[in-house]
Amino acid sequence: MNSFKFIADGSVTNVPGFRAAGVTAGFKRSGAPDFALVVSDAPADFAGVFTTCAFAAAPVRLCRERVLNSEKLQAVAINSGVANACTGKPGLAASHRTCELAAKKLGIAEELIAVASTGRIGVQLPMELIEKGLDLAIPALSRDGGAAAARAIMTTDTVPKAAAVEVELAQGKITLGAMTKGAGMIDPHLAAPHATMICICATDAAVDKSLLQKMLGQAAGDSFNRITVDGDMSTNDTVLLLANGNSNIRIAEGTPEAEAFQAALLALLQNLAHRMVGDGEGATKLVTVEVVNARNDAEARVAAEAVANSLLCKTAWYGNDPNWGRVVAALGYSGAHFDPDKCDVYFGKLPVVLSGGDAGTPEEKLVEVVREREFTIRCDFHEGSGSYWVWTSDISHEYVKINADYHT
Amino acid sequence: MNSFKFIADGSVTNVPGFRAAGVTAGFKRSGAPDFALVVSDAPADFAGVFTTCAFAAAPVRLCRERVLNSEKLQAVAINSGVANACTGKPGLAASHRTCELAAKKLGIAEELIAVASTGRIGVQLPMELIEKGLDLAIPALSRDGGAAAARAIMTTDTVPKAAAVEVELAQGKITLGAMTKGAGMIDPHLAAPHATMICICATDAAVDKSLLQKMLGQAAGDSFNRITVDGDMSTNDTVLLLANGNSNIRIAEGTPEAEAFQAALLALLQNLAHRMVGDGEGATKLVTVEVVNARNDAEARVAAEAVANSLLCKTAWYGNDPNWGRVVAALGYSGAHFDPDKCDVYFGKLPVVLSGGDAGTPEEKLVEVVREREFTIRCDFHEGSGSYWVWTSDISHEYVKINADYHT
Repeated sequence: MNSFKFIADGSVTNVPGFRAAGVTAGFKRSGAPDFALVVSDAPADFAGVFTTCAFAAAPVRLCRERVLNSEKLQAVAINSGVANACTGKPGLAASHRTCELAAKKLGIAEELIAVASTGRIGVQLPMELIEKGLDLAIPALSRDGGAAAARAIMTTDTVPKAAAVEVELAQGKITLGAMTKGAGMIDPHLAAPHATMICICATDAAVDKSLLQKMLGQAAGDSFNRITVDGDMSTNDTVLLLANGNSNIRIAEGTPEAEAFQAALLALLQNLAHRMVGDGEGATKLVTVEVVNARNDAEARVAAEAVANSLLCKTAWYGNDPNWGRVVAALGYSGAHFDPDKCDVYFGKLPVVLSGGDAGTPEEKLVEVVREREFTIRCDFHEGSGSYWVWTSDISHEYVKINADYHT
Repeated sequence: MNSFKFIADGSVTNVPGFRAAGVTAGFKRSGAPDFALVVSDAPADFAGVFTTCAFAAAPVRLCRERVLNSEKLQAVAINSGVANACTGKPGLAASHRTCELAAKKLGIAEELIAVASTGRIGVQLPMELIEKGLDLAIPALSRDGGAAAARAIMTTDTVPKAAAVEVELAQGKITLGAMTKGAGMIDPHLAAPHATMICICATDAAVDKSLLQKMLGQAAGDSFNRITVDGDMSTNDTVLLLANGNSNIRIAEGTPEAEAFQAALLALLQNLAHRMVGDGEGATKLVTVEVVNARNDAEARVAAEAVANSLLCKTAWYGNDPNWGRVVAALGYSGAHFDPDKCDVYFGKLPVVLSGGDAGTPEEKLVEVVREREFTIRCDFHEGSGSYWVWTSDISHEYVKINADYHT
């Protein structure tokens, strides 16, 4: 039972008790908005999952500290254009200084503030721009600032990505809203205290920190962790969820309400993750790679991820070429254990490989499938009951152009 | 001491007792040469390493059988244009039938023949073209056919790749010659009975099969296994080495001669591997990624391979962009264990990252390094004494063009 529904043009500020703003502080040479602030009226329970990259950026290190040591969170400040990654001790100090400044200007305690950054790696955070961002954003905070905030966190994204869902519970209505960014350096492996994806989620449900962390980890695992654009995990991937309890409806573990909340959170994050891949750098296709009947889910996962990250598959899709040989080669080198002579592969509903050999479907039929903007490749190992799916994009000329020339 | 020297324009037929031919059988629509035959005057000891892809092609399965069950090998038939991969039982039967036909036409036993195929996956081997190839190649076999054979095994290669070295031993001179192909689907992980790279090597030294296998495995590990173009391992990677003993000089394990042979074999395979990366599909750069002072060699390897296969690094290099943030991100997500705050990174001789932060080298100096056709990126973890290096190429518009449009 899905007891939730999406709100048209929803964002974090559809959630009662949250205000947001997006302004131009000057991090981007383009002059586009580049600083966002999301603030809860009251201190909120919270959860976070972050990149597993060893070179985690300064803001990620700071957020991990918050997850470990802070009871509550009330505001998140996000800049785009400078990632504050590989910036050493001065970089970490700059993230802390951002919190200090925001705390002072918002009149709340420093440990209630979290930060996220995205953009060029290796550049120190210009503190005067942070200060400018705060000075512009704080007065601009509003109950309909979610869309502006979503726009301000974009880098190579071509469209802002925000959404909100309402959940009807026996006790009343709760709302979840979120915004996300990320079009390149996208292959998130988020772990509790692991994409440059950034996602800030808000809800007015009341949820204990430990349950919130568990639910966020599970939802991120089935959404952001299932997408890849280029196979490059970022130094800055950050997903934060704030629950301010504004609805006075408490979600307790093991209850139907928790189940409904989890379903709504998953739907929200999957909606955003799907849009991220669709807006992947230079992407012209969105391909679902599904491996079924593997020995176990872990084996299905390595096989699906190998196909999803295969440069030869991704360029073939861009060329509308149903070159399934590249799919089976990737399955074969993935490290998954399966008998190639039992393996079937489908493009959409059409069999391309049956029992490890050509299924004989005419190429022109297959071309019709891969010409679509969205299609599914399903691989059946006939080994067990393990399964996994991944959303991936193609690699186009535009991708190479964006990434050979990107200097923020 | 290097007691070997390269022979100008060398090939397999610089090795006494070997003849070769390259002809046009019709596998390629272009009409370019596409069938090669290498034949030793006498049955030869031999060794082979092959792809570790689960979907190993029919000719690879046949060659593995030979390594396990045949005492000697005398001829190798190679076609390009059709990979005979994912072709099931009919495909394996076709590889066996190729051997049968070659045996009959050459007048030698079937188990003395090996085959290799490269090209489109999923297409059955057209036996009438194999027969035509044999009928044209056998009369064309000659002591100077090595260059023609090297040309006939090309697919997306822009230049043929062959080489030969002479080794002066106390007992006299021995020769090693080889030819190789492969420009895409290149990320070999060769294993003893493990690239679509194909390499056929020949020597007139006399070497026992078990020692030959050991020496080939070691040399392939430090040459072909160290290269990547697109991170996609092939279904057909095959390296075969035939030692016909024509020189009457026997190489015994643990002797200075074995050491000299190993050094010469390694130099020969590295020469070819280096040229493969340089001729990688659409490649404009050849980058050596070196990780030093890692906890151990295995950790150094995963870190070096992550950078070498990072799409963001490879497109940055194409764009002459010294975006070292992408290098550290790849090191960070590689899974290698190291302290980012101790990590140094150099582009050529210039430090870009020192102790995990920006080394401050002006960007214009770094641009000079990455503008070169060949440069080295060295990463120092300051953790232990493990090290590894990899040769990789950039990813260009031409790469996307080749792979979005390649239908053999």
